[in-house]
Amino acid sequence: MPASRATYTFLGPEGTFTEAALMQVPDAAGAVRIPSSNVNTALDKVRDGSADAAMVPIENSVEGGVTATLDAIATGQELRIIREALVPISFVLVARPGVDITQIRRISTHGHAWAQCRLWVDANIPGAEYIPASSTAAGALGLLEDDTHYDAAICAPIVAAEQPGLHVLAENIGDNPGAVTRFVLVSRPGVLPARTGADKTTVVVPLPEDRPGALMEILDQFATRGVNLSRIESRPTGQYLGHYFFSIDADGHVADARVADALAGLHRISPATRFLGSYGRADAQSPVVAPHTSDEAFRAAHAWVDEILAAETLGSGMAANASPTA
Amino acid sequence: MPASRATYTFLGPEGTFTEAALMQVPDAAGAVRIPSSNVNTALDKVRDGSADAAMVPIENSVEGGVTATLDAIATGQELRIIREALVPISFVLVARPGVDITQIRRISTHGHAWAQCRLWVDANIPGAEYIPASSTAAGALGLLEDDTHYDAAICAPIVAAEQPGLHVLAENIGDNPGAVTRFVLVSRPGVLPARTGADKTTVVVPLPEDRPGALMEILDQFATRGVNLSRIESRPTGQYLGHYFFSIDADGHVADARVADALAGLHRISPATRFLGSYGRADAQSPVVAPHTSDEAFRAAHAWVDEILAAETLGSGMAANASPTA
Amino acid sequence: MPASRATYTFLGPEGTFTEAALMQVPDAAGAVRIPSSNVNTALDKVRDGSADAAMVPIENSVEGGVTATLDAIATGQELRIIREALVPISFVLVARPGVDITQIRRISTHGHAWAQCRLWVDANIPGAEYIPASSTAAGALGLLEDDTHYDAAICAPIVAAEQPGLHVLAENIGDNPGAVTRFVLVSRPGVLPARTGADKTTVVVPLPEDRPGALMEILDQFATRGVNLSRIESRPTGQYLGHYFFSIDADGHVADARVADALAGLHRISPATRFLGSYGRADAQSPVVAPHTSDEAFRAAHAWVDEILAAETLGSGMAANASPTA
Amino acid sequence: MPASRATYTFLGPEGTFTEAALMQVPDAAGAVRIPSSNVNTALDKVRDGSADAAMVPIENSVEGGVTATLDAIATGQELRIIREALVPISFVLVARPGVDITQIRRISTHGHAWAQCRLWVDANIPGAEYIPASSTAAGALGLLEDDTHYDAAICAPIVAAEQPGLHVLAENIGDNPGAVTRFVLVSRPGVLPARTGADKTTVVVPLPEDRPGALMEILDQFATRGVNLSRIESRPTGQYLGHYFFSIDADGHVADARVADALAGLHRISPATRFLGSYGRADAQSPVVAPHTSDEAFRAAHAWVDEILAAETLGSGMAANASPTA
Repeated sequence: MPASRATYTFLGPEGTFTEAALMQVPDAAGAVRIPSSNVNTALDKVRDGSADAAMVPIENSVEGGVTATLDAIATGQELRIIREALVPISFVLVARPGVDITQIRRISTHGHAWAQCRLWVDANIPGAEYIPASSTAAGALGLLEDDTHYDAAICAPIVAAEQPGLHVLAENIGDNPGAVTRFVLVSRPGVLPARTGADKTTVVVPLPEDRPGALMEILDQFATRGVNLSRIESRPTGQYLGHYFFSIDADGHVADARVADALAGLHRISPATRFLGSYGRADAQSPVVAPHTSDEAFRAAHAWVDEILAAETLGSGMAANASPTA
Repeated sequence: MPASRATYTFLGPEGTFTEAALMQVPDAAGAVRIPSSNVNTALDKVRDGSADAAMVPIENSVEGGVTATLDAIATGQELRIIREALVPISFVLVARPGVDITQIRRISTHGHAWAQCRLWVDANIPGAEYIPASSTAAGALGLLEDDTHYDAAICAPIVAAEQPGLHVLAENIGDNPGAVTRFVLVSRPGVLPARTGADKTTVVVPLPEDRPGALMEILDQFATRGVNLSRIESRPTGQYLGHYFFSIDADGHVADARVADALAGLHRISPATRFLGSYGRADAQSPVVAPHTSDEAFRAAHAWVDEILAAETLGSGMAANASPTA
Repeated sequence: MPASRATYTFLGPEGTFTEAALMQVPDAAGAVRIPSSNVNTALDKVRDGSADAAMVPIENSVEGGVTATLDAIATGQELRIIREALVPISFVLVARPGVDITQIRRISTHGHAWAQCRLWVDANIPGAEYIPASSTAAGALGLLEDDTHYDAAICAPIVAAEQPGLHVLAENIGDNPGAVTRFVLVSRPGVLPARTGADKTTVVVPLPEDRPGALMEILDQFATRGVNLSRIESRPTGQYLGHYFFSIDADGHVADARVADALAGLHRISPATRFLGSYGRADAQSPVVAPHTSDEAFRAAHAWVDEILAAETLGSGMAANASPTA
Repeated sequence: MPASRATYTFLGPEGTFTEAALMQVPDAAGAVRIPSSNVNTALDKVRDGSADAAMVPIENSVEGGVTATLDAIATGQELRIIREALVPISFVLVARPGVDITQIRRISTHGHAWAQCRLWVDANIPGAEYIPASSTAAGALGLLEDDTHYDAAICAPIVAAEQPGLHVLAENIGDNPGAVTRFVLVSRPGVLPARTGADKTTVVVPLPEDRPGALMEILDQFATRGVNLSRIESRPTGQYLGHYFFSIDADGHVADARVADALAGLHRISPATRFLGSYGRADAQSPVVAPHTSDEAFRAAHAWVDEILAAETLGSGMAANASPTA
């Protein structure tokens, strides 16, 4: 039934590493896939319903967008991260067939990809001029146009593989061979992925005041419940410099008692705290949970306190005159 | 109805500061009051039902018992503190009528009272010999016996006032004029005094292991919820030196959300944590509660988390294949 | 004397907001100013001595580079931040004289600037196509070339002011009118700006292990000495995902005792901690320093401990047999 | 040489467990040993020079004195703990020769000893009357006097062994067979026992203000340097209830860098912090010291900071105009 086909958008165009991330989603192959020219556009498509979810970079991206993603999901209409994806980053140098590496003078690619291949370029094509492209794929596809004003492009291997008109002159030209980029799939609220046992929870916590210790109070809410953090970034709120919010990834799912309890603590300290989602870790690595931070420990603890409090109805009358038997 | 008359015991005999503390309890005047020779005996009377409650010293006492009280309520059958009392401590020197201060050679009193009047004694009756008594009152009443082997006693003003056979030779002879002692009224579980807004909660927390940071973890459970501590003591468990429990007084009532939450945290870290009671502060001083640690802040925080979790039933199916609309 | 003229590089080309930041440096007007095409290139010029210092964005930049800056100064040959600069960000839309806003179809600018003007563009030139440029200035200057394939550019007001061939069609078209970007001036080690009383210190701290609490231990080194943090970001080390370093801005100067002590604490926990510099805050706002974290408090504290330790030479012999007078 | 003979005092009289603790000091056998009737008297003898050191109980004592010791060394003229001693506590029941256990009606001993033997007494001599004594030894020796008004005493085995006139009716009658009491040897300042590698440091820290978090700030000074605590007690200052000092035993010696650094931190937060001594642990158990809290880690950390600061003389001039080469 066509109506049930999902619509995904991603930081495009086709052929970017972000699309590679999207293709890791089980039903993406059969879904409608719409490229977006930047992260804000992609997220807006989710917000206005023209897409069901958007795949965007969240860390260390080749095509940029990290800061944009952090800021865009921290403000405006609420969104939810429902999945993360890791994509190995490797680059190839492509040109039109017949072009030799010695003939290359001008190379196009995204600025961040250019930065990540500079050692190789300096060593192999010294003096090459850089022509900016809005994405690695855009730079590569531009070579196929008639009026192109550059000789080569740096892009993902998949683009070269899919375009017979592109010839690979060199592979694995990135300066950091093991590079991996992290992406997240963002949807509207209303979807909470089931707990897998190897989950992450992302929150945005505005700093209540710029006072010594405020950050510690926030982090202490996690530490007190034994919740480890895998990412933290302070970001200026944009209102004026000096006011911050924290974007935080914590190990565990909001359905884990220790995470739920930590989130409640955050909400007390900073009531505008925003929950951005709990979702399975791409690396599927389960955290080590100490016995005293297990769901069972929380359940037992609250049962114990409830039992103490249950005596109150009984006792309050007597206590009024402090006489245990009056 | 006679059956409803309460029975209280206290660290006796009659005339001690502990009895003065007991007399602050509204219905104590009309109740049965039984002196006990030591703290353990008093608490055992509560445990076996022969008394409804026991008044015992918990801090800085003249007649001892502090350590005994801490240890006795930390172990054995559970008990509850349901009230605290503060008693100003002042001492008088008494003798039989006709005895002059220059004739005094031997003075009897409790060891702790002796320690607290030593400056005065050294200055006014140099060389006086100390005769130990099991309590200040016992020392004073001993003067009325035929075969007494001492000339004077140091006791509470009330004893002298009630005994025509005792003559006050000097008043306010304590070295620390503003001294105040704290006592607690202990009953069997089943009675939880109503929250007054100026309360204390006492707990005993066994240290789970002797590792660096274990104590900090325990205290952090209070700090994270903005709960102030007014007393903390580590006590060896008695099993062997090096294993400890902590006896802690925290501001607030277990019916305060911040205290309940802190107690749950303690229970997780140290499941043998013992709740010893929540009760009105004798000084009726209300703590300053920051907005983010108010009951309302806790209620709002948990409502927020519950709302997030409520989405799970909806979303879990979809999340299984990470497609938001499949 | 020409030899004494400083050489500065900046994330160029001329006309970028980064150059505006550089022009805030007192002697920049008379210095040699070399644009660099990206942050890595700029920093490499400092490292190899072809520039004395580089001005690069560190937070919230229009022309990118933030992540690149953080990562580039965290690794490789050591560098020092010696100054920060704040630049208000405002955008103008420029075209060649005679071009009307209704004629505009294609607009060039840096991707981040495009993102920051999208609301205005969507409202005023709906359907405009985006042509990426390597910087806002490059996009604007491209309009002056014969073979330009776009109609307008978004750039800093200063570029328009300096180029008679550019006509301003609209001013203040940024979506966030009060936007300010932070830049830092980076030099080789060997220069430590004098303490001003309103300083910042930047450090990079590799997380020793991914264990619960490691981040807290790091931050606690600051909290224990009353040092406030104004920025914190975890960054993957690049070696493999899951291993992190923290880039941290702390209030105060390494010449402040509390900061020096905190840094020593960091070094113990993470010996590869990198000091990136102490420098005056661009906003010249002095922090509130509690009396117990003042230089005087540190001096007095260490004097006190030293006095205690001075007794050791005296005492150690006696202590050997635990007899105080032997 | 007689002049070099040390003079020790102890919480007496002879035959108490405190004297047993004193006899563990290597040169005590050949020293002058003066009993004191209470802890204050003993410490005053040290303060006025009439004794070189005093052995007094600090924890869990049979003859009392714990609270007195804590308070007495926390105030007044400074003193130093130079040694600790552990004494196994076991009790015997003694009577005059010929007295049978069935004949016993009245038993004398110190109040605390009485409390610790009550289970045995209740089971074996039900209904026995308690006659207070100022010490266990005093009670036992009283049996040898003509006019004694009780039949038996509870005391340390050593008293019975040394007094042919006392007959042991029962051994090991304490309710807690493995009981051990901790004592400390206190001298005037000027003696700092050498570091053994298995040391304790005792401090008294007045709480600067009764604010939430003040206690945590104090304890954090230890935690931040990885110093474990083995004892902590809050004590009212005596001035008025609600003001506290903390008596703390920490693992390690002030000559350990981590302890010295923690002490400096305490002094900043609470300048009236009192150092009561560093001394070998009676159990000779060395703490586990993490590499990052070793002396070497502290030395390296401070060397690193010093190196950073050494650049200041060089750089300050240049930094004044923020130009690295001007």
